[in-house]
Amino acid sequence: MPRLEPYSKDLSYSYALGLYPALTLMERRPETVTRLLLNGNVPDGEGINKLRERCAAKGIREECAEKVLKRESGKANCFAALVFNKYSGSLNDGQPHIVLNQISDAGNLGTILRSAVAFGYGNIAVIRPCVDVFEPHTIRASMGAMFFLELAIYDSFEEYRSAYPGHELYPFMLDGAVNLQRAALKAGSRHALVFGNEARGLEARFAALGQSVKIPQSDEIDSLNLSVAASIAMYTFRNIKKDQ
Amino acid sequence: MPRLEPYSKDLSYSYALGLYPALTLMERRPETVTRLLLNGNVPDGEGINKLRERCAAKGIREECAEKVLKRESGKANCFAALVFNKYSGSLNDGQPHIVLNQISDAGNLGTILRSAVAFGYGNIAVIRPCVDVFEPHTIRASMGAMFFLELAIYDSFEEYRSAYPGHELYPFMLDGAVNLQRAALKAGSRHALVFGNEARGLEARFAALGQSVKIPQSDEIDSLNLSVAASIAMYTFRNIKKDQ
Repeated sequence: MPRLEPYSKDLSYSYALGLYPALTLMERRPETVTRLLLNGNVPDGEGINKLRERCAAKGIREECAEKVLKRESGKANCFAALVFNKYSGSLNDGQPHIVLNQISDAGNLGTILRSAVAFGYGNIAVIRPCVDVFEPHTIRASMGAMFFLELAIYDSFEEYRSAYPGHELYPFMLDGAVNLQRAALKAGSRHALVFGNEARGLEARFAALGQSVKIPQSDEIDSLNLSVAASIAMYTFRNIKKDQ
Repeated sequence: MPRLEPYSKDLSYSYALGLYPALTLMERRPETVTRLLLNGNVPDGEGINKLRERCAAKGIREECAEKVLKRESGKANCFAALVFNKYSGSLNDGQPHIVLNQISDAGNLGTILRSAVAFGYGNIAVIRPCVDVFEPHTIRASMGAMFFLELAIYDSFEEYRSAYPGHELYPFMLDGAVNLQRAALKAGSRHALVFGNEARGLEARFAALGQSVKIPQSDEIDSLNLSVAASIAMYTFRNIKKDQ
């Protein structure tokens, strides 16, 4: 087997570190998995046994790779990981989308993906330049949620838009024209919630592309954390019409 | 002046690193500030000049402390920080509260405090054992928001409760009895939203103490990120009755 390289954006494969992300990956994208890495003194347990069985059933090679696990996780107690080939998803045109424009933080991206699964947003467009979606830290922050999603990467917002011209666009901006509650109440099911970079937000031109939205908040803070803002938006769009 | 120690929970002082947290601290809690630390090659700018002026006006000593800034921030480009004495806030009995029971992650705590300011929750109870609220990483994750808040720390939930027995309690639990929207619609203004530890949540006994609440979410994820869950809850309690 070839030597496993330290993770970098240019590699064709990545690492799903930890039991929960690895099990999710085996359940949802087993065809991408190439190797199962184990720590020499892995404790016996239901989760690890399930992972080993599923890998064995698919003919995936199991190997002791303590050093690789420690190197990639930065921790001594990472007991298992999968090596998998990076893949490209494709968005469903009939479903709502989340569009992440030039996100720069892996923790934020992972947390947004976890919330997206929680609130039934299964189709995510990521616009470059952006954090590497396959970076192990992103996967870990998503708790493996990213393997439940269709994730497609575009070189520009326009490239995404020309592929899906029919979605109502809701760009989230600090000076958005309507409040979140109001936007969510009137939205159709085929909508796209658009979020910008952590520091810069969305450029002003986005306001003209759709119905710009603001989340009402105190002037005492600069802005909400990006993963918090995106999660509040998804939750509200999903739930506003219920319980009323 | 005494030597500045590497930050630890046992010190009587802490560091507010970076311009924005430092300016907020000078605005809201200037009486706690003892020293202004600057990098030797700090760039000239409106923010830094304002910070230096405010410190000078209060007789706060300014000093070049490049090594301390680098050590505490872990970065080479931290240009300014304040040293301040830890303090204890006191909660307003007539206002709603947020109760954080045994939170363990500084990033989560900081993000929750930032959202609390955004949504007008100015009174926060923190129950031990918990992450150090004055740890520089917490302050940084809150973007200085914590200086706008009354933050009080308790040794147990019961200690908090006996000080404020009149608040309606809303413990957030994965198996909460009512949905967030419904709970928020019926809540009075004197309520407390209660959140548990990242890994364990709240113990089952909390369900009997008030109206337990769940945030509707897919079974495909284990749970939401804690700062996301708390922020969605605060947003919803603040906004549900508007725009309807």
